[in-house]
Amino acid sequence: MTFEVTILGSNSAIPANGRNPTSQVLNFNERLFLIDCGEGTQMQFNRYKIRFHKINRIFISHLHGDHFFGLIGLITSYNLNHRTAPLHIYGPEGLDEVINVQLRYCSRQIDFEIVFHIFEPQNGAIVFEDMTMKVTSLSMIHRIPCSGFIFTEKFAEQNIRKEKIKQYKIPFEAIGDIKKGADLQLEDGTIIPNAELTLPPPKARSYAFCTDTLYNEEMLPHLQGVNLLYHESTFDKTRAERALETFHSTAEQAAEIARKAQVYKLIIGHFSSRYHEYDLENLLKEAQAVFPSTQLALEGYTFPIERV
Amino acid sequence: MTFEVTILGSNSAIPANGRNPTSQVLNFNERLFLIDCGEGTQMQFNRYKIRFHKINRIFISHLHGDHFFGLIGLITSYNLNHRTAPLHIYGPEGLDEVINVQLRYCSRQIDFEIVFHIFEPQNGAIVFEDMTMKVTSLSMIHRIPCSGFIFTEKFAEQNIRKEKIKQYKIPFEAIGDIKKGADLQLEDGTIIPNAELTLPPPKARSYAFCTDTLYNEEMLPHLQGVNLLYHESTFDKTRAERALETFHSTAEQAAEIARKAQVYKLIIGHFSSRYHEYDLENLLKEAQAVFPSTQLALEGYTFPIERV
Repeated sequence: MTFEVTILGSNSAIPANGRNPTSQVLNFNERLFLIDCGEGTQMQFNRYKIRFHKINRIFISHLHGDHFFGLIGLITSYNLNHRTAPLHIYGPEGLDEVINVQLRYCSRQIDFEIVFHIFEPQNGAIVFEDMTMKVTSLSMIHRIPCSGFIFTEKFAEQNIRKEKIKQYKIPFEAIGDIKKGADLQLEDGTIIPNAELTLPPPKARSYAFCTDTLYNEEMLPHLQGVNLLYHESTFDKTRAERALETFHSTAEQAAEIARKAQVYKLIIGHFSSRYHEYDLENLLKEAQAVFPSTQLALEGYTFPIERV
Repeated sequence: MTFEVTILGSNSAIPANGRNPTSQVLNFNERLFLIDCGEGTQMQFNRYKIRFHKINRIFISHLHGDHFFGLIGLITSYNLNHRTAPLHIYGPEGLDEVINVQLRYCSRQIDFEIVFHIFEPQNGAIVFEDMTMKVTSLSMIHRIPCSGFIFTEKFAEQNIRKEKIKQYKIPFEAIGDIKKGADLQLEDGTIIPNAELTLPPPKARSYAFCTDTLYNEEMLPHLQGVNLLYHESTFDKTRAERALETFHSTAEQAAEIARKAQVYKLIIGHFSSRYHEYDLENLLKEAQAVFPSTQLALEGYTFPIERV
């Protein structure tokens, strides 16, 4: 089942050096979730052939412009493209006002439903949940309220052991119930317990998105064993003081979080505009010295959330 | 003296087919004026190497998103780049509220002055004027209040006839006054009238920006003899009915305005997303059949406002 994230922008603060502000698309079994929506996100959809009509849920970390200025344009473009499906937007207080005041002056009748889910960042709080996916909040330490997100797949059902189907000639109609936990009664009355017929589902994969934030060890229990972590690394370690002043992290600090949380893989982004393309290798090396399985979250790159 | 306009975006409604929403930079003697500011305008500055710190005045035609969604990002980027010069923004009612509500939630302290000049579209009304430039409004016929703009150069001074300097041995100190209209008194008391010493300044050049609008002959007296006219041509003439419904114009109608106003040159833009790059030639031919001196307002192209 597809579970992967595509980077649409990973520059901080302003578009610069050919890099766009923050935006990512998470593809989970062909359902698309948008994470942050900096200016130009809809142009990035075109560039990277994102089937953006499949996005029904958008998660906004905080109200600094490089994380949400593209949202109003996306909404009006959906409308001009005759969208009818409801659009769910998860974000901090004020996001609804910011969007609605603009729609009011545009005199645009929006022909689909926009559902704002306003929440406060809080470690472990459930932001969205359905049968197959859970999204929890993670409190970032930034200049304004800011939430990270952990996307975790859910398995409603156990796996049936194929050899047992053959052995007990299990009829097709019974398989659904067994996956849900039922025992099997044979024609002679014998009961085969569910535990013999099924295997537990595989370990759920998860993707964590952590930006913008200071280095913060309080995140660690929530990030334990995450399969893929995106952690901001606005600066290199020689600028740790600047990171502290601006409530951002260094590449080394991002890697430190990944190492201590024992995540599987790390991608770093939200690069300061001071870094040109050729500088990013230095950030990467700095992070890899602490946590080798690190990659740069470069635009257009897709990273699978792999089963360990 | 430089007087030219660079097209940063000329698509209508949504970014599509590699085209950006409306934005143009007018360079008048190395002072830059921004006209409309669709999403992604600041990225276009980077792409086309626009020295955007030289922009001190921004003119917004109306509050449809494809004409102003890039403004908030530009303002915050100016701030992050430590701008100190005041920024003057000319636009319709509501523009200040839209910008201010976003700045409030960003918790951004803007370290330069933003001066909003809110005005209602009105034919011939002066929106901005100084010693060298006058900007007047032109009322568009659109679904919401919408203003076109005519930028006209001004000459504060007449030209002095070089041969007269020699003939009367005019001292350097006297030249400034003569340019401003003074007569010359020779040593023997003779008065040489100003009219003999000077030539009238050349005919002022002007650039007119007309989008979004229905075909509207009421504009004609104001556009008479304009050197360069940008007129929207959202559709081709086979879609004249659609143009009417949506308060837009066809390429033929744009050319008709240019022909009747006897402008010098016409550029057409604000193309519907239905037109791919190869379709634009059809729009161009349609306009040229009526007004031969027509060009497509393609992104990255710079059009001089030429003296006739």
